[in-house]
Amino acid sequence: MPRLKPPPETRPKITDMSALTGLVADDLCEVNRLILERMQSPVALIPQVAGHIIAAGGKRLRPMLTLAASRLCDYRGERHFALAAAVEFIHTATLLHDDVVDGSDLRRGLATANAVWGNKPSVLVGDFLFSRAFQLMVGDGSLEVLRILSDASAIIAEGEVLQLATANDIGTTEESYLQVIGAKTAALFAAASEIGAVVAWRSAAEAEALRRFGRNLGMAFQLVDDMLDYAAHQAELGKTVGDDFRDGKMTLPIVLAVARADDTERTFWRRTLEEQDQTDADLAQAIALMRRHGTLEATLDRARVYGEEAIEALSVFPDSAARRALVETVEFCLDRGY
Amino acid sequence: MPRLKPPPETRPKITDMSALTGLVADDLCEVNRLILERMQSPVALIPQVAGHIIAAGGKRLRPMLTLAASRLCDYRGERHFALAAAVEFIHTATLLHDDVVDGSDLRRGLATANAVWGNKPSVLVGDFLFSRAFQLMVGDGSLEVLRILSDASAIIAEGEVLQLATANDIGTTEESYLQVIGAKTAALFAAASEIGAVVAWRSAAEAEALRRFGRNLGMAFQLVDDMLDYAAHQAELGKTVGDDFRDGKMTLPIVLAVARADDTERTFWRRTLEEQDQTDADLAQAIALMRRHGTLEATLDRARVYGEEAIEALSVFPDSAARRALVETVEFCLDRGY
Repeated sequence: MPRLKPPPETRPKITDMSALTGLVADDLCEVNRLILERMQSPVALIPQVAGHIIAAGGKRLRPMLTLAASRLCDYRGERHFALAAAVEFIHTATLLHDDVVDGSDLRRGLATANAVWGNKPSVLVGDFLFSRAFQLMVGDGSLEVLRILSDASAIIAEGEVLQLATANDIGTTEESYLQVIGAKTAALFAAASEIGAVVAWRSAAEAEALRRFGRNLGMAFQLVDDMLDYAAHQAELGKTVGDDFRDGKMTLPIVLAVARADDTERTFWRRTLEEQDQTDADLAQAIALMRRHGTLEATLDRARVYGEEAIEALSVFPDSAARRALVETVEFCLDRGY
Repeated sequence: MPRLKPPPETRPKITDMSALTGLVADDLCEVNRLILERMQSPVALIPQVAGHIIAAGGKRLRPMLTLAASRLCDYRGERHFALAAAVEFIHTATLLHDDVVDGSDLRRGLATANAVWGNKPSVLVGDFLFSRAFQLMVGDGSLEVLRILSDASAIIAEGEVLQLATANDIGTTEESYLQVIGAKTAALFAAASEIGAVVAWRSAAEAEALRRFGRNLGMAFQLVDDMLDYAAHQAELGKTVGDDFRDGKMTLPIVLAVARADDTERTFWRRTLEEQDQTDADLAQAIALMRRHGTLEATLDRARVYGEEAIEALSVFPDSAARRALVETVEFCLDRGY
């Protein structure tokens, strides 16, 4: 069974996704070609807005999961190209809508589409890309894939609404938080991975193993992301440090800090999060409280548990370059946090 | 061949959709039951927002088209229930997003979801309902239906973006306007009607006839709607008279008025629409110009042409209660305009 290597204090840190990107480089070119082709429309604003977010340096992590999972399953056909593009379109549609909902100005270090064109095109072009994703799936013709990705899409939307409902609520539990990220992030990682087994006509057990891999990787990925919102340097983050705090998002570093708060600290959280009464100095104080209670480390510890589970899920597959690339992807997602 | 009756000056005006609602009453109960069942979610805000717009007195015109078209094709099964619900979910998702994009406060005489809960839940619950629509279609299992409705969804989004791009542009042509309403409205009417033939395994010619019926009905419906934005009494309209003028929407009554404008009038349109510099008195002046140039009547004339075409499309089907109900639906849509 593949084991997670020790944390990067005692082994070389994985600083990029080169194992994964190397494995699927040729396939990803074809996916990128398809993405560019299928985001076209006679309505010029659509490729402008879609191109802005799609071309703007996304990692393409989710479509690469579909490609690598297909490779892991020895798939030799061409169906995975369109399905990986569909996965990326669903992801991009949710990003466009997320940025509207969060009022974000910056993503990956660039102005968001809503900052450039306003909210209206972001909402509508998101809808367009979402529809395109389903057109790509219909073109593929697998009802099983359509089921997996329409289920994932509904769950993503539920997770986004739940996140909205828990915002500014300092009573939010760790369980609610895990439910939010399980839906808004892990569901698409799970679906993207699972369809690699589906196109290759692998067994239900193997599809379930890839689903479990994707789901746990997604949880680890989002936990690290939520930690980095407070721990990263702004230039590396590509967005503003502390955005989640300003938005009142109840991510795990805050949920745990509130749970461990004394009365004075609880008053601070109530004022800054529930009453949304924040000064510029409050972010520094919030981060100081997270450090005092070790909640950033605790968040990373949770991520490690999910990472171990993701790697464990791959143990039903024999050793291969694809499996090693997927294991390294988990390690990279975790190592971003160190 | 069924012919449109003379305009209501010389025949009884069709004041409701009782022929259609009577025909599909039992089926619609089942569709409404399904809609209520499938808009549920453990995330309480979802059924709240969805219920607000779904339960708030929508006409259910589009799902009724699916039901009546199935009846016209002698369909005896139960697949049309879920597909009619899917059609209504797609429609509802676009309404939620439209109201965000337009910043509308009022729909069908009630506060919009965005006015009650803000834009964020409207965007996300729209995404949820859209996903639910695809889950319903996947449950049905027809790739043909999935193709028809995913194509329609992409075209709707394109139409909405094109409408956005032509807003405040007094150079907008009648052709562009027809392209917008063909996409944002008629595409779903066409798809909703066509799938009645698809579930009944009717010939491609019959499916195409129903598609043509729906498409032309949708064009007529939207033309009348755009005329009523200026001609209706506020209480009947269920929204504010002249919203399209304030939003700078280039609907046909305005497109034609601009085309027929003299220099003074053109200056008026440029100021009020392009420069969005409007006073309260400008709406009355805009309507006076539309009346002077007969553009409201001209819009209704165009609608009549599409209505004739819709009814003509039904001529491949023998006379039946279903065909008569669909003909009366066309007449009702037109008579709303008199």
